[in-house]
Amino acid sequence: MVAINDIAVQQIPTFPLNRWYVAGFSWELKNKPLARVLLGHSVVLFRLDNGHVSALEDRCCHRSLPLSHGTLEAHGLRCGYHGLLFDGSGVCVEIPGQNKIPEKARVSTFHVREVNQIIWMWFGEEKCAEPTHEPPEYAIHDDDRYLFRGDVVHYDAPYQLIHDNLLDLSHLGYVHLQTIGGNAHIHMNAKMQVHSDGEVVRVVRHLPDSDPPPTYVAAYPFTGKVDRWQEIEFHVSHLLIWTGAVAAGTASLSDPDRDGFHMRGFHGITPESETTSHYFWTMATNPASNEEQVLAKVIEQTELTFEEDRVVIEAQYKNLVRFDSPAGVDIHVDVGANRARRLVELLRRNSLSKSN
Amino acid sequence: MVAINDIAVQQIPTFPLNRWYVAGFSWELKNKPLARVLLGHSVVLFRLDNGHVSALEDRCCHRSLPLSHGTLEAHGLRCGYHGLLFDGSGVCVEIPGQNKIPEKARVSTFHVREVNQIIWMWFGEEKCAEPTHEPPEYAIHDDDRYLFRGDVVHYDAPYQLIHDNLLDLSHLGYVHLQTIGGNAHIHMNAKMQVHSDGEVVRVVRHLPDSDPPPTYVAAYPFTGKVDRWQEIEFHVSHLLIWTGAVAAGTASLSDPDRDGFHMRGFHGITPESETTSHYFWTMATNPASNEEQVLAKVIEQTELTFEEDRVVIEAQYKNLVRFDSPAGVDIHVDVGANRARRLVELLRRNSLSKSN
Amino acid sequence: MVAINDIAVQQIPTFPLNRWYVAGFSWELKNKPLARVLLGHSVVLFRLDNGHVSALEDRCCHRSLPLSHGTLEAHGLRCGYHGLLFDGSGVCVEIPGQNKIPEKARVSTFHVREVNQIIWMWFGEEKCAEPTHEPPEYAIHDDDRYLFRGDVVHYDAPYQLIHDNLLDLSHLGYVHLQTIGGNAHIHMNAKMQVHSDGEVVRVVRHLPDSDPPPTYVAAYPFTGKVDRWQEIEFHVSHLLIWTGAVAAGTASLSDPDRDGFHMRGFHGITPESETTSHYFWTMATNPASNEEQVLAKVIEQTELTFEEDRVVIEAQYKNLVRFDSPAGVDIHVDVGANRARRLVELLRRNSLSKSN
Repeated sequence: MVAINDIAVQQIPTFPLNRWYVAGFSWELKNKPLARVLLGHSVVLFRLDNGHVSALEDRCCHRSLPLSHGTLEAHGLRCGYHGLLFDGSGVCVEIPGQNKIPEKARVSTFHVREVNQIIWMWFGEEKCAEPTHEPPEYAIHDDDRYLFRGDVVHYDAPYQLIHDNLLDLSHLGYVHLQTIGGNAHIHMNAKMQVHSDGEVVRVVRHLPDSDPPPTYVAAYPFTGKVDRWQEIEFHVSHLLIWTGAVAAGTASLSDPDRDGFHMRGFHGITPESETTSHYFWTMATNPASNEEQVLAKVIEQTELTFEEDRVVIEAQYKNLVRFDSPAGVDIHVDVGANRARRLVELLRRNSLSKSN
Repeated sequence: MVAINDIAVQQIPTFPLNRWYVAGFSWELKNKPLARVLLGHSVVLFRLDNGHVSALEDRCCHRSLPLSHGTLEAHGLRCGYHGLLFDGSGVCVEIPGQNKIPEKARVSTFHVREVNQIIWMWFGEEKCAEPTHEPPEYAIHDDDRYLFRGDVVHYDAPYQLIHDNLLDLSHLGYVHLQTIGGNAHIHMNAKMQVHSDGEVVRVVRHLPDSDPPPTYVAAYPFTGKVDRWQEIEFHVSHLLIWTGAVAAGTASLSDPDRDGFHMRGFHGITPESETTSHYFWTMATNPASNEEQVLAKVIEQTELTFEEDRVVIEAQYKNLVRFDSPAGVDIHVDVGANRARRLVELLRRNSLSKSN
Repeated sequence: MVAINDIAVQQIPTFPLNRWYVAGFSWELKNKPLARVLLGHSVVLFRLDNGHVSALEDRCCHRSLPLSHGTLEAHGLRCGYHGLLFDGSGVCVEIPGQNKIPEKARVSTFHVREVNQIIWMWFGEEKCAEPTHEPPEYAIHDDDRYLFRGDVVHYDAPYQLIHDNLLDLSHLGYVHLQTIGGNAHIHMNAKMQVHSDGEVVRVVRHLPDSDPPPTYVAAYPFTGKVDRWQEIEFHVSHLLIWTGAVAAGTASLSDPDRDGFHMRGFHGITPESETTSHYFWTMATNPASNEEQVLAKVIEQTELTFEEDRVVIEAQYKNLVRFDSPAGVDIHVDVGANRARRLVELLRRNSLSKSN
């Protein structure tokens, strides 16, 4: 697959390392272990009675059964084949029928953090390396002014195709005509500002004095034209996308305290493998009234939108594989996505240089 | 797969080139683009308002989405991702939100012809090469004396196994006992004449004074024995098979103007890949009365027959792959099929020599 | 896959040869040919009117259609494509429409024996080699004191993972808690005796004065504690497992004539390929009363158990492939399984040395 491997040299890691990726959401960890493959690692996630979340290599050190097939106990995870019990740090603490537990009876553990209902997992250059910093906060999940829901979608496509899609919202006019899109030409002709700032790429577009799209009208009592904004903040492992609108002329689009209708999206894009991805998303909104009803509407429309995107991106990826050569023509909307690709390439190379 | 690759040398093309293959039927192109892989090429077929059929490489030159995911407009095909519009010759004529269209914003086009409701596509040694001759006519599709219908069947088997099957109708007695076959020994003992003539192989068998098979009785008021014929005309990309019967002793089987019951089949065998094929077929008949009813019966029996063939040929191909060695014993019925295989081999080599 | 290939050297066969493997059960061969892949060979099994079972290479020598797609006649199997007829020894005895049958018109045959309703097939170093001994007897299938039923289960896992599972019944406490297992610690703490004897490995465990597991209580009128045994006899191509119980203190567990409740399992583990297997099983029991009802109960519980095992073993194998490295830690219950693995390794090497 050319699109993600064009600069692949043997030593450069496939994904930028030394950073946090999303491994799950808090509400996914109830009374059962959860199996997930993240950056090529088979991981079992679980929460013990003390509330802490653990992430272990998903393989018993005895006969290799996935530990995710086992049963969660108060203080550990028990293998479903011969009953070995592992604590949250991966150490085997019981072998039924055997008194002595060998030193090497343990499984690898991964560093995890749970912040704002997001479970982050550290991927260093070396397996199990210590994190060098803490994961980011996403305060909106704990902000009383917002209601949110979220989910995870599996993609048969590599992660950077999802980056491309999210960094270029001009596709709203063609892919999402019936939901959050609306008039195609408005999107395509909106002026786009792109800024880089260290490991962040920001794309901002304003659509002043435009018709509100179907989702907006369904969720908020707009009666005429609106001033609309799209603010995309790309971090290597996730994106924050704040879209919204105020009644035309009632607030400055550059004012972060503008009111009106908000859709604030969190998009954790975690590679499963070189060719498949997990898309962890939440969508938060600020209903003026009928809170649950508006939230349900926003989430329903968001899910429709994401499904439309998935269909397009998976078809795009199949075609990239089939043709096995880049298509080649860039257009005006590609600025943000191309800058993000250069950043990812740089960070992949940096993952390497740090280890030398 | 030995059966189709036994003479494969690096430079020899997999399929005979410099000729027309069937890409579809006229009635398949309505108000939507049609995606099809033909001789390894991903193609999108569509008909514009001017009535012309176009065939383009099925990939947008911007971000590689299949153009077949897009929407058909009066004068072009619009990509479903960012809205680029392509005319029937593959030239991008609009990039929404951008004034200047780059010179290289175009996709490859293929030469197509629409004749007698068959859409033919030219495959030259080089992609997009100009045709050196016109596709064949199949006048029966436009002949008032015949009614016909047709369809396309996908095969998980290489194209030459379908040639083998169609060139040896002796399998009718075993595979199609319940439909067009009838008595097995009659078929096996019928004298077979095989003639080669340039790029055509002809196989003729006469079954005089035999019992009409179930399909014939259902479709035509035969009351006793019949004189039956099977005439197969093999062209590299398609076969014409004329089978039929007259009441015994009422006409010469060698007279092309003989009346009686006719089943005239057109069989376009177009490789999809080295291991899979498209089988485009039509079946025309000349009902004496109850026209639509007889046609429906003939088509129903034909579809049953083709499905029986597909099951056998796909099972055969799976076994060829599994055993990975030729079975080796030829019998009397293989003369026509073997001659066609030698012709295909020769034409594949000729495809090469022409380019030197 | 490390688990089965760790000692693979080019010349050593994948499976121990020069022995009988189970190919089917008598009741599977009725009025239709049966296709099965055994040790990598595609085989068609069928019974002719004379009662003899034949096993031929499942490929017509003409155009390679699987003969299992054909029709069974009184004295042979007829190919479903052009009607060639083969007798039980693989010789083509009829080519419809052709007088002379070529010498080489024959398909390979395999040596089979039918004993105690088990159909055994010989796999020598060379294809079609003569057997050097007769297959084993399993008299319980013809013993009036027992009723039995059986079936075959397909595994997406290599055969030795099934050996491991059957040689270590300590997993009963974790995998089969709801059926034949019962208290996990009882199993894990039971003393295990392992003996090797030529090409046989025996594992015996006694569980005196224990609670009868759910299956036992359902099938036999136990009212209190039981003395329970598990006797495993590993042969390279099959295992005999005799488990059962008597009311506590009423018989010696070492007495082969002990009465009580018996479950006598026959387990034919025949590789289909390096990575997939056939598991042929029967379960015989000795109901004190309500014979058919108890048998049905035992079979139902056995099927549940085997399904639980299949899920675990296939998940284990997927993980072995995914991680592509051995897990490494052995525990007390592995003695029998490890000894069987060493025996299989030795016999695979012996298969080789015999041919030098």
